[in-house]
Amino acid sequence: MLDNAVKASHDRTFYAQYPEHPKAYGEEAPQSGEVAFKAMLGRPFDRLLQDTDNWQGEEVSPYTMEPLAISYPIIPPDALVMAAQSAAKAWAKLPVTERAAILTESLEAIKQHFFEIAYATMHTTGQSFMMSFQASGPHANDRALEAIAMGYRELQRYPEQLTWEKPMGKSSIVLDKQFKAIPKGVGLVIGCSTFPVWNSLPGIYADLVTGNPVLVKPHPRAVLPIAIVVAAIQQVLKANGQDPLLCQLAADTSEHLNTKALCEHPDVALIDYTGGSAFGNYVEQLPGKTVFTEKAGVNSVIIDSAKDMDAVAQNLAFSVSLYSGQMCTAPQNFFIPERIYDEVANKVRDAVAALVSNPKMGAGTLGALQSDVTFNRALDARSLGAEVLLGGAPVTNEEFAKARTCSPTILETTADAQEVYGRELFGPIILLVRTKDTAESIRLAREMARKHGAITCAAYTTDPAVQAEIAEEMNSVFTPVSFNFTGFIWVNQHAAFSDFHVTGGNPAGNASFTNPEFVLRRFVWVGNRVQVS
Amino acid sequence: MLDNAVKASHDRTFYAQYPEHPKAYGEEAPQSGEVAFKAMLGRPFDRLLQDTDNWQGEEVSPYTMEPLAISYPIIPPDALVMAAQSAAKAWAKLPVTERAAILTESLEAIKQHFFEIAYATMHTTGQSFMMSFQASGPHANDRALEAIAMGYRELQRYPEQLTWEKPMGKSSIVLDKQFKAIPKGVGLVIGCSTFPVWNSLPGIYADLVTGNPVLVKPHPRAVLPIAIVVAAIQQVLKANGQDPLLCQLAADTSEHLNTKALCEHPDVALIDYTGGSAFGNYVEQLPGKTVFTEKAGVNSVIIDSAKDMDAVAQNLAFSVSLYSGQMCTAPQNFFIPERIYDEVANKVRDAVAALVSNPKMGAGTLGALQSDVTFNRALDARSLGAEVLLGGAPVTNEEFAKARTCSPTILETTADAQEVYGRELFGPIILLVRTKDTAESIRLAREMARKHGAITCAAYTTDPAVQAEIAEEMNSVFTPVSFNFTGFIWVNQHAAFSDFHVTGGNPAGNASFTNPEFVLRRFVWVGNRVQVS
Repeated sequence: MLDNAVKASHDRTFYAQYPEHPKAYGEEAPQSGEVAFKAMLGRPFDRLLQDTDNWQGEEVSPYTMEPLAISYPIIPPDALVMAAQSAAKAWAKLPVTERAAILTESLEAIKQHFFEIAYATMHTTGQSFMMSFQASGPHANDRALEAIAMGYRELQRYPEQLTWEKPMGKSSIVLDKQFKAIPKGVGLVIGCSTFPVWNSLPGIYADLVTGNPVLVKPHPRAVLPIAIVVAAIQQVLKANGQDPLLCQLAADTSEHLNTKALCEHPDVALIDYTGGSAFGNYVEQLPGKTVFTEKAGVNSVIIDSAKDMDAVAQNLAFSVSLYSGQMCTAPQNFFIPERIYDEVANKVRDAVAALVSNPKMGAGTLGALQSDVTFNRALDARSLGAEVLLGGAPVTNEEFAKARTCSPTILETTADAQEVYGRELFGPIILLVRTKDTAESIRLAREMARKHGAITCAAYTTDPAVQAEIAEEMNSVFTPVSFNFTGFIWVNQHAAFSDFHVTGGNPAGNASFTNPEFVLRRFVWVGNRVQVS
Repeated sequence: MLDNAVKASHDRTFYAQYPEHPKAYGEEAPQSGEVAFKAMLGRPFDRLLQDTDNWQGEEVSPYTMEPLAISYPIIPPDALVMAAQSAAKAWAKLPVTERAAILTESLEAIKQHFFEIAYATMHTTGQSFMMSFQASGPHANDRALEAIAMGYRELQRYPEQLTWEKPMGKSSIVLDKQFKAIPKGVGLVIGCSTFPVWNSLPGIYADLVTGNPVLVKPHPRAVLPIAIVVAAIQQVLKANGQDPLLCQLAADTSEHLNTKALCEHPDVALIDYTGGSAFGNYVEQLPGKTVFTEKAGVNSVIIDSAKDMDAVAQNLAFSVSLYSGQMCTAPQNFFIPERIYDEVANKVRDAVAALVSNPKMGAGTLGALQSDVTFNRALDARSLGAEVLLGGAPVTNEEFAKARTCSPTILETTADAQEVYGRELFGPIILLVRTKDTAESIRLAREMARKHGAITCAAYTTDPAVQAEIAEEMNSVFTPVSFNFTGFIWVNQHAAFSDFHVTGGNPAGNASFTNPEFVLRRFVWVGNRVQVS
């Protein structure tokens, strides 16, 4: 499994250890998952091997608007760090092959909980059931395996021991050399409220495979999905004779956030962060810490030409509607040259309107809005000062009458209105920007990525020269481009083992899932030399 | 040559592309080198393919105390950066195989100048002729080759192009994917006055092999050695149809230093720095820059036990005397338990005194002091408040009567006197610290490395348990340990292709020659996707 994963992450062809079809996990699995999820509601989460007198929780389902009423152990930062350090010594001494084996086993254990995690994700983030299952289940596990595999490979890059012999005329100097990968120290993984598992697993597993203990600090409104994962990891560690506190849930409350105290703790050496840019910039500038961030970005669509503009509009309508635009990969700004602007704008509007009102597709694609903040931003989008091409409004969800939903608002603006589109408007808000020509579209998309960061760029053109130009310009600001996606493939999707998620080169984040640096920066090569003769 | 270098840097056994014996380069080479060096004195350095109206220079030989009277082009930062950016586009588009081939050819060109560079190094840094030759010649070229090889390997880690096919029931989604290693931007390599070539070549070549242009900012008192190298690189670039301004000398003067202006230039993306900690800390905290530093450290010797303490003392005497302690790898603090303190202290004192006064060895080992600052620090060492076991004094150099020299001062102090030994005392100053026992020695050496940084640690013990304990404790603060070195091997030496130079894990520096990060952090992987069906 590890060798396949190492190979896949270098071949970068299609690969999945964990199939994304629910049926691959048995007919009964979804229902038992739902039963298990419901059994957890309304009481303390008792699976963790962590204890305290202070149990709290504040999660509310975006579908039912009811509190989950699950409480989690709230443990002070000092106690978490001390337990992590105490657990770390034996773990650091295990060969990476053994660490990787135990961690891989933990993925298999997590697999048994995929559907509980799916329901937990759905009722904390507002993702649809299918996205909750895929993103927090197989896709997250594949990303975790990718991180384990990269660590497994990189920690075996150099020989543990060798004889070095330097010829000195007729004799020689002989040294016995040992190379060790020394873990940097306690890791901290700060999760977000929209992708509590997918965005946290790479950092958790990268810390652990490189020999570091890890504290998992979830968003107080999205704890359960990752708590199930942490508990499963702890059980597997324990079963393998390791200290389960190598991986601890570091839950806190909105009233008393521990994030800064954990970040600034002198013994926290590694920080993985997913979330807003303001806090992300603070984390990046902390002295003496090794930091991996994914922050906000402004993703562009450049539309130049297409064989079938209806197919383009339908593809993009799905991309912007999927989880109501709450993906870090969702497109926001559509740059459309005036020669085709009216045609394209109308097609996009019609496609979004059709999708949203489609009784089979609409509510399921949109899911629910994770927070009131996003909901209010979506409702207020009309007052951003741009023309409203399509107004967003709550959408009926047949299964959950109280679900917090809002369909996409489509605004129309002009190239010079950067005060409107020159920032992330997280949620179901799309801006169509009328440009002079594709050259201006490219220039603006590039500038957005350079100044505000970008994780994706979708582009449509039938002209190879324009395609090359878009690739060149967007790549120069470290933004990948997806060309001419139609049908069942969307710019939002980054496949494990093939697509790097975030490049690390623009303000959207300083790290990437999972390039070599993502594991290399978590340990230090140290070489000892012993003279033999 | 590249394949051998890639293999060597992973095997980490003894390997040298460029032999360290002067004789390997022909009988005539040293003398022609001296002739060429002398011909450069007293006039503008005219080999660079850079021009300006402003030519200045201020180098003074530490051996003759005479100005070299060579002037260099002084070009404003903006002009350097613009020329670099203009040169960069075509270079970035070359396949890494071609870049690596051209850069390897430039090493062969530099080889032709090894002895000029040796004399230039000698008369700027004060290194002995042999050290000047080895450090600035073969050893530096080997480190450069190591960086090229790492880039050559890492940029070919992922396929440039592949077909990704995701099965979707009876059909599939097919994408054409392209992976590109996008260079980060203009590089800046800030050199130091003591190792102007050895410490600069890895950063220069790491920048160039990863597709970045580079500005080489020497210390104003040690320009010539690296100027010869830059000129050679420019000639080879030009001969291969590349813009020679991909690699520019960014000389300045002590009166008008350009270092901060270059560091803070918005288009400078990469900075390699060797030098003092104050400026190094400033560089490390510059927002938005990728920074590689080697700063000051406090290197320890832990003496517990030895089969032959005389051999130990002789080995250490050479280590501390070599280039008068002006190596970043030179030992400073000797931690010696009281049970053997007097015996060891006397042996070290006697060995240093014998080496210094040895007419065949003394002056040649010590070389000259690069600067008045170091000279005065050495002379003032007596007034540091510690007992003087051996006073330092100028040493006669038969070849250069005016050479600025000073033999090592050996001071004796106690474990609690951290105000004396708890900082770098750059130059020929050694502190013997009397400790309660080896456990205290280890604790103090560890604390010094953790707080002040360390690049090396020499340890002597015949007890395997003590050896393991020293390795464990020093490695935990990311400091490598060299055990029981006697004879012709010294803790100061870090061999290319085998020893990592600086671990990057403690305050002595944040980077390492040449681990994978040293090249990986200079470019960004970006993947484009084009839908095929």
